[in-house]
Amino acid sequence: MPKPSLREELLSAGLDTLHQKGFNATSVQDIAEAAGAPKGSFYNHFESKEALAAEVVLKYEEQRKARRSILRDARLAPLRRLRKYFEGVNKAVAEDEFTTGCLLGNFAAELSNQSPLIRERVGKAFAAWCDEIALVIGEAQKAGAISKELSSQSLAAFVIHAWEGAMLQAKVDKDRAPLDDFLKVTFSKVLA
Amino acid sequence: MPKPSLREELLSAGLDTLHQKGFNATSVQDIAEAAGAPKGSFYNHFESKEALAAEVVLKYEEQRKARRSILRDARLAPLRRLRKYFEGVNKAVAEDEFTTGCLLGNFAAELSNQSPLIRERVGKAFAAWCDEIALVIGEAQKAGAISKELSSQSLAAFVIHAWEGAMLQAKVDKDRAPLDDFLKVTFSKVLA
Repeated sequence: MPKPSLREELLSAGLDTLHQKGFNATSVQDIAEAAGAPKGSFYNHFESKEALAAEVVLKYEEQRKARRSILRDARLAPLRRLRKYFEGVNKAVAEDEFTTGCLLGNFAAELSNQSPLIRERVGKAFAAWCDEIALVIGEAQKAGAISKELSSQSLAAFVIHAWEGAMLQAKVDKDRAPLDDFLKVTFSKVLA
Repeated sequence: MPKPSLREELLSAGLDTLHQKGFNATSVQDIAEAAGAPKGSFYNHFESKEALAAEVVLKYEEQRKARRSILRDARLAPLRRLRKYFEGVNKAVAEDEFTTGCLLGNFAAELSNQSPLIRERVGKAFAAWCDEIALVIGEAQKAGAISKELSSQSLAAFVIHAWEGAMLQAKVDKDRAPLDDFLKVTFSKVLA
């Protein structure tokens, strides 16, 4: 396997560090150190910490898209796919001991006033996620498994928001109970 | 009216600044300046920025409790109270142009790994909020307006999480639509 480029190593270290510590608590020096690179080399690859963070959002999205393939698994009923997907998401954050949470939610909270660039990237990532969930909810509605009273887009956005809030609570409590409750209420009330 | 003490002014300026800019993007100097005080005087009143932020959570809770009095207005049916309460909350964040959002959610996202003290304070504030909402949901369940299939605590926590997530989205989109959708889905699906 070819050695990853220094740019790729900085991006990867940037994702880990920013996800763990947030944007303003992380310095360019922290990221360079985590990548095992001299601080000066950072600026050969990225104009600023903000520019790296904007690319980090894209990299994070790529990683999350891989997990979403289950949403398109036509062998499973749509609601079954959605449940398995969120169970997988919850398992991953639990393995992480609720330290990092959702990078999109973290950046939304910390940077929406500070960086129009990050805000735009996070907005696009949320929208793409919502579209994928809405597609499955739409299928479930067609199959008669979910009421059509509300649009698949409204329901998808609501479910994502409920998950984001539950994730914040899990970070505070260092406990998976809010994420388990999310599944319970979502599948017995919202997607019914 | 007596002049507020410098301590009170620092606390008030700290709440505004931390709510707007977050914890790590705000310096002690920023807070002292916003209070019109010399930086050195800050440490006569607070041991650290973290110590001030921990008190800021309590002050924020006090302010929010005042808005929650409507939840105990026995002249209104429980669900009517809940809806009016969340309509009021949404109006307040819209007037603020979705810049600050929820201090508890912001601190949960930014500081849960960084400060055990803030994490504990935010956890207590979430729990107190959840108890107040659960009380009203319990009344609505007794009155037969909401199904008793899930506990009032589970439903209250879920509704708060859905609101926190919608608030993050509103900060990203600078738009009230996620908060309007929150009301729609909450009252037609979750609290039904």
